[in-house]
Amino acid sequence: MQTSLLQKMIEQLQCLPGVGPKTAQRMAYHLLQHKRQAGTELANTLATGLAEIGQCKQCRNYTELELCDICTNSRRTQNTLLCIVESVSDLAAVEQSGHFSGRYFVLHGCLSPIDGVGPQELGLSQLEEVLASDGSDPSKPLVEEVILALNPSVEGEATSHYIADICKSNNVAITRIAHGIPVGGELEMVDTSTMSHALMGRKQF
Amino acid sequence: MQTSLLQKMIEQLQCLPGVGPKTAQRMAYHLLQHKRQAGTELANTLATGLAEIGQCKQCRNYTELELCDICTNSRRTQNTLLCIVESVSDLAAVEQSGHFSGRYFVLHGCLSPIDGVGPQELGLSQLEEVLASDGSDPSKPLVEEVILALNPSVEGEATSHYIADICKSNNVAITRIAHGIPVGGELEMVDTSTMSHALMGRKQF
Ligand SMILES: [Zn+2]
Ligand SMILES: [Zn+2]
Repeated sequence: MQTSLLQKMIEQLQCLPGVGPKTAQRMAYHLLQHKRQAGTELANTLATGLAEIGQCKQCRNYTELELCDICTNSRRTQNTLLCIVESVSDLAAVEQSGHFSGRYFVLHGCLSPIDGVGPQELGLSQLEEVLASDGSDPSKPLVEEVILALNPSVEGEATSHYIADICKSNNVAITRIAHGIPVGGELEMVDTSTMSHALMGRKQF
Repeated sequence: MQTSLLQKMIEQLQCLPGVGPKTAQRMAYHLLQHKRQAGTELANTLATGLAEIGQCKQCRNYTELELCDICTNSRRTQNTLLCIVESVSDLAAVEQSGHFSGRYFVLHGCLSPIDGVGPQELGLSQLEEVLASDGSDPSKPLVEEVILALNPSVEGEATSHYIADICKSNNVAITRIAHGIPVGGELEMVDTSTMSHALMGRKQF
């Protein structure tokens, strides 16, 4: 028997995280029954988004432009704090706390030699360029302090130490977000109030 | 600030049932990070599926063809049982029990005058045509017994009585699936074993 379009829809919806066969089936029926228009718009946005969204040239945040919203926001380029996160989800978690108005750098991972993730995969030479700026070029704003907001894992620690060395050789202060994030917990799951405390209580690294 | 493509993705993913802002965000990041290829295929399938999947001319099951897989399956057209369900999800639930090898008729709802759902919206004239066949035309197989597999709601009961009248005037026997489905429960949530019992123990309506 040939695979029907409906079967294909149900199968492919399972590429979404947390979506198994039952949920995928419910989604497909729901779209067909009630949301043809909205589902079609979603399909177009997904196709365009997945083709066009890349990484910000400066901070590796997701954007379809050369530079992201944050890197081109003049209120934020005047701020000399740079928060380093493992993922864009973590960036969003820090943003949602409302307690940070500096810029970011997104590693998209952590050092993990076993998985073949080294300094290059994390864009650390790009980070070095960001930190090397003396602020004379307005397109390369000054960074005076790096705030590490990495997960408290073994890889996160190793990555923190590696970045600390880059900061030292560029005379940039380095801190880490404070206790408040449960060890073993996931940064992106933290509530905004805990995240605020962690940002306020940051310590010398 | 202009809406970014990523924001559009997160917003539009919420047209999926059970997907709120947090889940939509996680889905968007997951696709961007790990599933660009699969996500793009999903987008194409959704666009095609939502444009092309319509209702089977005979049973109103979802299909991109004129007739669905079930209506064109010769093993099933030889079977003179016709199971009437409210939705394609309910059809799938009966199929998964593995205890039914007849055909279906999908109402896509229940009689509900307040919501403007009358016999026409449920395709009951189409059902009447199916039941009127004397089996001499191989493209219109004979139906000897209708099995009602509607939810035990007020609307389900009203609809059952309406269909019973159509069956009587066409000399088609009518039964309903047996106890086993909890009253007030949703048919599509029933486990396959309960569904099997309900089909086996069907009674004269
Ligand atoms: Zn940026
Ligand atoms: Zn059919």
